[in-house]
Amino acid sequence: MFQTFDPPAGSAESAARIQSVRLALERAGFDGMLVPRADAHQNEIVAPCDERLAWLTGFTGSAGLGVVAATKAALFVDGRYTLQAADQTDARALTVVATRETAPTDWLAVNLQPGSVLGYDPWLHGREEIERLSKAVERAGASLRPLKANPIDSLWQDRPVAPMGAVRLHPEDISGESASAKRARLAKALSAAGCDSAVLSRPDAIAWLLNLRGSDLAHLPVALGFAILHDSGAVSLFMAPDKLDSAVRDTLGPEVQVAPVESFGAALDGLSGQHVRLDARSCALWIAHRLERAGASLDWGEDPCLLPKSRKNAAEIAGMRATHHRDGVAMVRFLHWLDTQAETNTALDEIAIVERLEAFRRETGCLSDISFDTICGAAEHGAIVHYRVTRATNRTLSPGEVLLVDSGGQYPDGTTDITRTLAYGTPLETARRPFTLVLKGMIAISRARWPEGLSGRDLDALARASLWQAGLDYDHGTGHGVGAALDVHEGPIGLSRRSGATALMPGMILSNEPGYYREGHFGIRIENLLVVGEASVPETGERAMLGFETLTLCPIERRLIDPALLDAHEITWLDAYHARVLEALAPDLPEEARAWAALACAPLMS
Amino acid sequence: MFQTFDPPAGSAESAARIQSVRLALERAGFDGMLVPRADAHQNEIVAPCDERLAWLTGFTGSAGLGVVAATKAALFVDGRYTLQAADQTDARALTVVATRETAPTDWLAVNLQPGSVLGYDPWLHGREEIERLSKAVERAGASLRPLKANPIDSLWQDRPVAPMGAVRLHPEDISGESASAKRARLAKALSAAGCDSAVLSRPDAIAWLLNLRGSDLAHLPVALGFAILHDSGAVSLFMAPDKLDSAVRDTLGPEVQVAPVESFGAALDGLSGQHVRLDARSCALWIAHRLERAGASLDWGEDPCLLPKSRKNAAEIAGMRATHHRDGVAMVRFLHWLDTQAETNTALDEIAIVERLEAFRRETGCLSDISFDTICGAAEHGAIVHYRVTRATNRTLSPGEVLLVDSGGQYPDGTTDITRTLAYGTPLETARRPFTLVLKGMIAISRARWPEGLSGRDLDALARASLWQAGLDYDHGTGHGVGAALDVHEGPIGLSRRSGATALMPGMILSNEPGYYREGHFGIRIENLLVVGEASVPETGERAMLGFETLTLCPIERRLIDPALLDAHEITWLDAYHARVLEALAPDLPEEARAWAALACAPLMS
Repeated sequence: MFQTFDPPAGSAESAARIQSVRLALERAGFDGMLVPRADAHQNEIVAPCDERLAWLTGFTGSAGLGVVAATKAALFVDGRYTLQAADQTDARALTVVATRETAPTDWLAVNLQPGSVLGYDPWLHGREEIERLSKAVERAGASLRPLKANPIDSLWQDRPVAPMGAVRLHPEDISGESASAKRARLAKALSAAGCDSAVLSRPDAIAWLLNLRGSDLAHLPVALGFAILHDSGAVSLFMAPDKLDSAVRDTLGPEVQVAPVESFGAALDGLSGQHVRLDARSCALWIAHRLERAGASLDWGEDPCLLPKSRKNAAEIAGMRATHHRDGVAMVRFLHWLDTQAETNTALDEIAIVERLEAFRRETGCLSDISFDTICGAAEHGAIVHYRVTRATNRTLSPGEVLLVDSGGQYPDGTTDITRTLAYGTPLETARRPFTLVLKGMIAISRARWPEGLSGRDLDALARASLWQAGLDYDHGTGHGVGAALDVHEGPIGLSRRSGATALMPGMILSNEPGYYREGHFGIRIENLLVVGEASVPETGERAMLGFETLTLCPIERRLIDPALLDAHEITWLDAYHARVLEALAPDLPEEARAWAALACAPLMS
Repeated sequence: MFQTFDPPAGSAESAARIQSVRLALERAGFDGMLVPRADAHQNEIVAPCDERLAWLTGFTGSAGLGVVAATKAALFVDGRYTLQAADQTDARALTVVATRETAPTDWLAVNLQPGSVLGYDPWLHGREEIERLSKAVERAGASLRPLKANPIDSLWQDRPVAPMGAVRLHPEDISGESASAKRARLAKALSAAGCDSAVLSRPDAIAWLLNLRGSDLAHLPVALGFAILHDSGAVSLFMAPDKLDSAVRDTLGPEVQVAPVESFGAALDGLSGQHVRLDARSCALWIAHRLERAGASLDWGEDPCLLPKSRKNAAEIAGMRATHHRDGVAMVRFLHWLDTQAETNTALDEIAIVERLEAFRRETGCLSDISFDTICGAAEHGAIVHYRVTRATNRTLSPGEVLLVDSGGQYPDGTTDITRTLAYGTPLETARRPFTLVLKGMIAISRARWPEGLSGRDLDALARASLWQAGLDYDHGTGHGVGAALDVHEGPIGLSRRSGATALMPGMILSNEPGYYREGHFGIRIENLLVVGEASVPETGERAMLGFETLTLCPIERRLIDPALLDAHEITWLDAYHARVLEALAPDLPEEARAWAALACAPLMS
């Protein structure tokens, strides 16, 4: 299994650990420190050795910020994690603060002693974050300063070692472009932007640029390391040399120099006098400080890999299509199996479902990993947006319940991310209206056409308008960028009011996942992946339009649809989608599953 | 008439004037200068004495930037004005540049001589604009510096004098809040933001704050001047004292000190040591430079009147409702008249239509002005988004043509802005589909519900989705903020991808005006004004939603609607709107117009 179901370790030692951190800080001349849930690469998934926030507080969510102050400690989490954080932490040791109610900046401005010095580990923060927090700290008359060493790293007994996963080549027939062509292309753009070099600190950017994949992290096929892209097209790669075997090194060629991470600082010193591009959001401030001291001139902008990586080429899109075909077969077999369980199995629980789904994906014969821990929430668990089942929360399903399953697979040629909300046995009548409203939003995005130049932000309202009419909404983005055999959450694009202004361009891949959550009852989310392309325009159309092609191939739960709420365009879209799913997958389905799929994919009004 | 139909004066003297400006600049040590279409208040409408760009180039559009360089001169205009600018200017004297193809920044970076000095009049530019242009000028190795005096002002013979329009009080039963209450409220907010004072340079902000209205400009009931709001709530008003009679002065009271504009600079010097709020978009740089020299500390932000002014109170909304009722009666009488003309008058032309519409508005007995020059475009003229008919362009209408009429009135208690697209006689068959698609977008905005926190930008796609599906779009915003008996184009909100992030809040008034333009054939635009309020939410709704109430009362051209393209929600909305229009206006309509309205407002499928 790629997923475990162990309940989190708990927070019995949290108070003592916070106290020992305070003592260490005092010795170093600090009154407190920031403890982000972050590594030196601003990855969303971090290695066990980087779980400093969990070590300190017990909280294991994927986003959070700890603050240890002289007499107080706080853990800031967003709406997804307020309940979990309260559960996992020791209320006597720290206060859980919902960022929606009190932003860290507001808390800092009020809770720091004037004159106090708050420390931060410059490896774990980007520039924008520290600028924002600095202002707040200064409002309190305190100051925010980089720590020379992170006290947690020395206090943490039995701290796991840094991962040493092997690196493999990502073949050119899948990447669609040689690493040398990518290097040359980016180097040219870098020069044109007036830069001599760029520091790359995002492992997925490095993986994309050099056509490498790694195995340092769960679910994210990257190798931890840093790189410098020079305007000559050469790359200095800083990564434990043992991760790369000779075949990999040979393919990288002489223009890619591999050196241990320990030599990264000295290499930064060597950029003295250069204009160096740094990513304003993700580049660790340690790197910026080192470059400044070396006399480099900093060009804060965007990682030069980010935009080209988000625009998938034909080979990458073909890989994603093949991946979704394969994953669709696994999903249909899973949905068919689940339906048979509803009729016969009275003791089916969430963990068994997660295990069975992973097994179907493994039976494709080429699953590399799952792309994230499967979210499998029955009834009220479905309303917890980032629910992860553990043995402590696991529950059996009863017929008539709604089940939300959000999952995905990492394959050698692509990445999937799919959510289906299912009727377990008899469909729950009260879920049909909200399910259909969510579906309307999901279809509105699927069939949207728009003129070039718009960003995902500009389309978000289309996914929500039907829910808003009904006085409903959901508290997450409508979609995120998705990597090709890479990070399932990939910038710089998204389908959300909070996603940036980057325009949607052909080849970009996004999720489309509106939802609705009725606390204590059930959750609904329907998610397909989409790729941006030129849209067909009716004959009387005058302007070129962009549109989406749906990559995901899997039927949508018809028993939860109220057809009276769909208009003719929506029914046409749904029927055409189902016909396409059936036609594509039928040849590869076992007989019983194929018969099941034929019914699941029949026209809605038949 | 509030509108004239004179063709523009032309550009016969343009080359000579540019040459004399060059000579004057040379004497002052400059190699060129910027000539914006702007006054010291960044008004959209300027007084005749501020029409420097028209004097120099002949171009009379409402937006444009002239650049006189050592050997070249250019006029930058947006898409609305490229044809008009080419018509009005002398191609031997200057080049018309479409900003869509070449931004002024790109032109400057390429066309200036290294080492040359470009001047600008610091009264006529805001900070953001000069920062942006400075960077471009520096790219060329040149520099951008403030002029001591604008050479045009001394070269311009017979330059009109500055307007001296009388100021009147805007009564409290219409403004809904006394000037002293507004001053106290804003002063408190200013203190809370850490400011000692704010410089107000927008005449509509000053008019709102002090409950004054003026008559210095066409169509915009403001008096030109400046003000300083102190954190005590006192205001120093800089305005020709003769504009204010003793009744106005008495009502303003002792906390509002009136002084001539000539003493404004000395008053700025008196803010030495203070934190002074300036509006980053509209405050003239002359003011900022003077304050800096005086030793004030500048707080660049938003004019503190802008947001409160945009949130209309109950009295202002009541005034806007009364205004729209009155204006609706005039509009229905006009539409009825137009229909009778189509049957009988073979020589009706655009100017006659504009005159008759203004006459119907005057017959309300309380028209103060029109709110902008009426746009009355028959057939192909309708496709010119900012068409203004002159005796040179005037054309007669033929039955079967589409007519676009965009107009509005200024009344003592409110401002209107309405567009109707009409079938003159037999409806044009090819216009029905696009008209209905535009109507679908207009209805989508009218009946939108959304959760608090969204800005107009987030809703824009709803207005366009149906057009996009058909491969169509329009190149202007969907809507703009509207003042209450003030500026018909009012910030800081809008319904456009280009409008800022300010959230829509109850009381804000916006236009809703999607369109479609078939060049050389016809233009379509349908515009109502809306006010934001709490939306009713169905019983099963869970969240509070905001929504719009439509203020405009006037039937929509049913003969251009293809009902087959409307869904049930849209037909319900249209029928309910028409029923409301008829019920509201019928008692105040003459008998024949009432009978006409009953037909125009009948249910669509009847």
